[in-house]
Amino acid sequence: MDDILAANALYYSAFSSGDFARMSELWADEDVSCVHPGWPILIGRQAVLESYKNILRNPMQETIVVREEVAIVSARDGRVCCVEMAGDMPLATTNWFRRIHGIWRMIHHQASPIASMVQDSEPLRPHSPIKLN
Amino acid sequence: MDDILAANALYYSAFSSGDFARMSELWADEDVSCVHPGWPILIGRQAVLESYKNILRNPMQETIVVREEVAIVSARDGRVCCVEMAGDMPLATTNWFRRIHGIWRMIHHQASPIASMVQDSEPLRPHSPIKLN
Repeated sequence: MDDILAANALYYSAFSSGDFARMSELWADEDVSCVHPGWPILIGRQAVLESYKNILRNPMQETIVVREEVAIVSARDGRVCCVEMAGDMPLATTNWFRRIHGIWRMIHHQASPIASMVQDSEPLRPHSPIKLN
Repeated sequence: MDDILAANALYYSAFSSGDFARMSELWADEDVSCVHPGWPILIGRQAVLESYKNILRNPMQETIVVREEVAIVSARDGRVCCVEMAGDMPLATTNWFRRIHGIWRMIHHQASPIASMVQDSEPLRPHSPIKLN
């Protein structure tokens, strides 16, 4: 599990430092898709990387803090479910990776805003993933 | 690709008919996670199925119409990216399946509201997946 969590950390490190080259290396060459908060689905490496190029150079982009990571790995594919804090906005996030030539490469990212009405009526914590580490 | 699209259609058929037994059969026994629109991440079969039990018997639940399905399959795992229309609300949705004993079982569902500001500034269609069939 450790190395997929390291790959997940690499994603947020590349994101927070605006490092497009590392982001580009992390994403797999094929079978990729991405849903940014509020966005339609992007399919294919070109569309996905283009979106990151724009996001990483956007000075208004909120800093993302990741927490509550839970890794689910089966064979060569695995995902990390986590909560992103984009400023004050919590996002329910899934980052999917595939082990290609021994390296975890990203094949899917989807971050969904957690609605305040859900937070009000049902506390966030009981539904949040349990920390494994 | 056809059979994973059939599994995806089965999901929406079970959903729209409120058929919890079929929904329960479709979901895999392990490695499952789910993000309903606005919800935190649910991890594990029990939490996910409990959520569907509540959603399927909710008389206020919007009818879901699915469109623009794109299947991405690699080895025993595959996903269908699609757009759900929950009433007037478009949702960018990823349904992940695993072929277990020859049957596509669901391991992840995530539906994210597509923000109206994105729709207004950037038309939905160009960013939406291209229909393969």
